[in-house]
Amino acid sequence: MLPKDAPSQPSEKPRRGRPRGAPDASLARQNLIRAGLEHLTEKGYSSVGVDEILEVAKVPKGSFYHHFRNKADFGLALIAAYDIYFAGLLDRAFLDGSLSPLARLRLFATIAEEGMARHGFRRGCLVGNLGQEMGALPDGFRAALVGVLESWQNRTARLFREAQACGELSAGQDPDALAEAFWIGWEGAILRAKLELRPDPLRNFIKMFVRLFEAGTAG
Amino acid sequence: MLPKDAPSQPSEKPRRGRPRGAPDASLARQNLIRAGLEHLTEKGYSSVGVDEILEVAKVPKGSFYHHFRNKADFGLALIAAYDIYFAGLLDRAFLDGSLSPLARLRLFATIAEEGMARHGFRRGCLVGNLGQEMGALPDGFRAALVGVLESWQNRTARLFREAQACGELSAGQDPDALAEAFWIGWEGAILRAKLELRPDPLRNFIKMFVRLFEAGTAG
Repeated sequence: MLPKDAPSQPSEKPRRGRPRGAPDASLARQNLIRAGLEHLTEKGYSSVGVDEILEVAKVPKGSFYHHFRNKADFGLALIAAYDIYFAGLLDRAFLDGSLSPLARLRLFATIAEEGMARHGFRRGCLVGNLGQEMGALPDGFRAALVGVLESWQNRTARLFREAQACGELSAGQDPDALAEAFWIGWEGAILRAKLELRPDPLRNFIKMFVRLFEAGTAG
Repeated sequence: MLPKDAPSQPSEKPRRGRPRGAPDASLARQNLIRAGLEHLTEKGYSSVGVDEILEVAKVPKGSFYHHFRNKADFGLALIAAYDIYFAGLLDRAFLDGSLSPLARLRLFATIAEEGMARHGFRRGCLVGNLGQEMGALPDGFRAALVGVLESWQNRTARLFREAQACGELSAGQDPDALAEAFWIGWEGAILRAKLELRPDPLRNFIKMFVRLFEAGTAG
């Protein structure tokens, strides 16, 4: 998912030591990142060409190759930008001290559903999309995608430990394994919501997952 | 996943009323379907070209267009072939009367894991791959993919009803919603196993799902 306010990656030094050029160079980079996120969350990596991105971002080809070595380099920059954006979204829900940990998990699901609804459920998760395409992607993508999922899982495991501390989750559950199961199922739910163009799979998954959470409390 | 013995689709009449041609025409179709399943379960639809399939299947281009109108038509034939193959695999596990319903679910997971292991966890589920790519696929694919998932879910819901009948699953659970949750999570687990090139995500998901199943029994 990619809400309308998805930021582009924070400014980075341009590669290969070239002069930075016009004052709008970092704006061009931001536009490229934004157009890339929009297109790749909807269509994936393989079916989107650089020319398509240039046209939408209204950026000339030379500027693209000023900021990125090639399409693969651009793809890795998109993963990094998406990770930063999405970690912020997770923190907004998971660190909301006014809610119980379980309510924060539900808040995340609501925010995520609203984000998908804004685009008619046509845009999924960049990491899920690229993960599914991994067989056709440059090898460097694998470690980047696994790394992003692990960082989201670590945030989720921290939330689950808080849930244990306040009795919402039984001490017998393994927060790390449960957090991995959450992200396995959540990516599946995003995929299915995108396929069916409706929120029902997200809601079904959360309902089941919360039952698991509560089952743990009873055990 | 696609075990080595994945069959091609049963013979169908060739389209557009052309003469069937050489006696090996249906063999050519089988080879095309087989090569297509192998490539698309690994790389998805968008990144695989018809020429690549022709080369692997050792079939001339004219023969491809004798059997399929275009790549999209070929893609739909692959979905149909995969559905038939996979429904057989599900039935093998889910209709095994020597096992309890829960043990049959575990048997399915074991068979599926073995199938992925045979290809180093590089091949996923055709339906999951294409579902993830839906934003870049012809619109007709959506109904076909949803239809296949629903047929797998119906088989799974029947298994869960048997589980209720024998007390492995509480009467309070909704077998249809639980079956949908299973396929949401299972497709997520296949995606993750393919990304990490290892079986751990499949095992984590089944372990969690079975706990849900058993939690239902206790409730």
